[in-house]
Amino acid sequence: MHFANLFYVEAIRNSQSSIRNCLYLCAMKKAGILGGGQLGRMLLQAAANYPVETFVLENDADCPAAHLCTHFTKGDITNFNDVYNFGKGLDVITIEIESVNLEALEKLEAEGVAVYPKPATLKIIKSKILQKEFYKSNEIPSSEFVITNNKADLQQFSSFLPAAHKLAMGGYDGKGVQLIKTQEDFDSGFDEPAVLEKLVQIKKEIAIIVAVATDGETVIYSPVDMVFDQRLNLLSYQLSPAELPEKVFWKAEAIALKVVKQLKSPGIFAVELFADTEDNVWVNETAPRVHNSGHHTIEACYSSQFDMLWRVLLNYPLGNPDHILPAAIVNLIGENGHTGPAHYEGLNDVLAMDNVFVHIYGKAITKPGRKMGHITILSNEKQELLHKANQIKHALKVISK
Amino acid sequence: MHFANLFYVEAIRNSQSSIRNCLYLCAMKKAGILGGGQLGRMLLQAAANYPVETFVLENDADCPAAHLCTHFTKGDITNFNDVYNFGKGLDVITIEIESVNLEALEKLEAEGVAVYPKPATLKIIKSKILQKEFYKSNEIPSSEFVITNNKADLQQFSSFLPAAHKLAMGGYDGKGVQLIKTQEDFDSGFDEPAVLEKLVQIKKEIAIIVAVATDGETVIYSPVDMVFDQRLNLLSYQLSPAELPEKVFWKAEAIALKVVKQLKSPGIFAVELFADTEDNVWVNETAPRVHNSGHHTIEACYSSQFDMLWRVLLNYPLGNPDHILPAAIVNLIGENGHTGPAHYEGLNDVLAMDNVFVHIYGKAITKPGRKMGHITILSNEKQELLHKANQIKHALKVISK
Repeated sequence: MHFANLFYVEAIRNSQSSIRNCLYLCAMKKAGILGGGQLGRMLLQAAANYPVETFVLENDADCPAAHLCTHFTKGDITNFNDVYNFGKGLDVITIEIESVNLEALEKLEAEGVAVYPKPATLKIIKSKILQKEFYKSNEIPSSEFVITNNKADLQQFSSFLPAAHKLAMGGYDGKGVQLIKTQEDFDSGFDEPAVLEKLVQIKKEIAIIVAVATDGETVIYSPVDMVFDQRLNLLSYQLSPAELPEKVFWKAEAIALKVVKQLKSPGIFAVELFADTEDNVWVNETAPRVHNSGHHTIEACYSSQFDMLWRVLLNYPLGNPDHILPAAIVNLIGENGHTGPAHYEGLNDVLAMDNVFVHIYGKAITKPGRKMGHITILSNEKQELLHKANQIKHALKVISK
Repeated sequence: MHFANLFYVEAIRNSQSSIRNCLYLCAMKKAGILGGGQLGRMLLQAAANYPVETFVLENDADCPAAHLCTHFTKGDITNFNDVYNFGKGLDVITIEIESVNLEALEKLEAEGVAVYPKPATLKIIKSKILQKEFYKSNEIPSSEFVITNNKADLQQFSSFLPAAHKLAMGGYDGKGVQLIKTQEDFDSGFDEPAVLEKLVQIKKEIAIIVAVATDGETVIYSPVDMVFDQRLNLLSYQLSPAELPEKVFWKAEAIALKVVKQLKSPGIFAVELFADTEDNVWVNETAPRVHNSGHHTIEACYSSQFDMLWRVLLNYPLGNPDHILPAAIVNLIGENGHTGPAHYEGLNDVLAMDNVFVHIYGKAITKPGRKMGHITILSNEKQELLHKANQIKHALKVISK
């Protein structure tokens, strides 16, 4: 689905037209990634298809992305000097995690380095407070919220319960989110700036990935049905394309496109949405980067989210986000009670299953709840996807010995 | 298509059962690749899905595979000490080119390193003379041949013409092959040990890739129709699955399996075959490694040839070689008259085409005839595959500026 020029994205500061004209004949661009986790790793697997010199900044010299880039720099992605020095000579920079030094990216952008997502966009998304205010001011449906600066603030919002309390800054992978069901839970709230969001009567959680090219062209991936493990607040498995009533489907796509349009930046965006029991659609949150909800696109779609991001970063035409086959994904999470060198129990059983794709992220150490890999299943039959997803969840465990 | 235990592969010297039992729980294996070209590069892209520590030996520290491995060693793959020292601490070694030091591999194997393909198999294949004698002694149909030690030897074989003269050692990518049509061409023959093969009346050139696991289980990929550029003796484009009369299809599969069975080694094997005008099938030659004729498997098959080789090397169950969609491949070859920094003219036009997958090998310098990349096209419609293959051949050029 191509939505060429459906809407306007503000003119890119550093004229892209000269870059585009040059690209037909240019030698390799230098592209930097802030963060060296599994998203960086998969981004680098895709980079090897293109003429691009890759750079990674990360504190851990054995992180999942460290050995798949042309140049690895050990450094702190939250530190101004580390990020600025890393980015200075590059043509383009992207992120694989939001917790990066924004000021350095702003300076780099001002000095002519292309930064996608743009720092102005990242600034909105990094803060749960700014993000919620962004939805509100752009009339994008999102659950009702109030801002709290400390735990004591919560007391006045009993009428909001049940609610989710979300740290303004630094939440990730289910951390920084606290359910507040009754007033007795107020004590487990955050004592730092946060938002308190009224809970929606969720029927379904879905995610939609949208790619925005430097000229504002967008393509949109099929919605993904995300089934959560309530206990860990982590994805249990996901199905793509999601099965949705037509009304919900169109609402979700329109809302995702509106979010991304208003964010005014090239890049890949994952919009997480709730469909409620009355078929209303609400934005939960948006990530300005490749995203766990899009990992199936590696095998299931003509152009994966990682391939697509390279097309954005290198100023190539966008790819085709359509499915080749429907897919399910099972996340591979570190078992509770196991911290230490990672071992993949049952991996042979899973590899013996047809049309199942294993992705181990190469993390040496497993911890309870840590994302250690994912498994993609392809099939035209939904029952087969679900059946295999369940088999895999029971067969495969990440433990330490 | 799984052909479990169809035949016996000699017992592997270093008992695999203990490795298998351990694999459920073992930490990362150390796997080495001799050679750092595009085959190594794509092998490493696939490696990042598995818990494996990768090592590459190659003379050029900026070769296509240099920046995608955990450890790169600069060294000569034809030098005994370089190969032996590289391989000493590894669990398993494979090759991405045949011209490697065989004696070092034999010593490593004797000392307990798993070497796939096995050195004894590689020895047969490395020499065109031994390879032809292998086909003959195993009653595998292959064109009639004689051995020549020097140019003068050719004179006595006028009755063999037209024929192909092939250097015994070191031929690669169409080099080391000379067509001898008439006696006047004798002077362009090789003055070193070589084979002179009677030309077959070729109707079709096909390639079949077979994977052999350490326990002898085999899987076979669909035959690929290889259409050659006679001038460069390089692949022009290929279609997979090949369209073959049923009789030819079964003959080709049976012959490919027989070749691989008799080679008695785990690994990936590409068997190149001719179908003649009378629907006879002849083996042209066999490569004991991942192969250009299998690049479409990355996107077109459930388990790519690269994924499959990792399953062999890491002693996992074999994958599913079946097609998801039919595919065509166009090779991206350095233009004549261009030597220097590589530029990809027309890349944007090709990236604007749907369901087309670009693979640029990251070689800094282009030369006439050098393999610089390949493009895979997926479609259910043969006409669309051919149409896009032709478009790409005209749109995309590798030049130097």
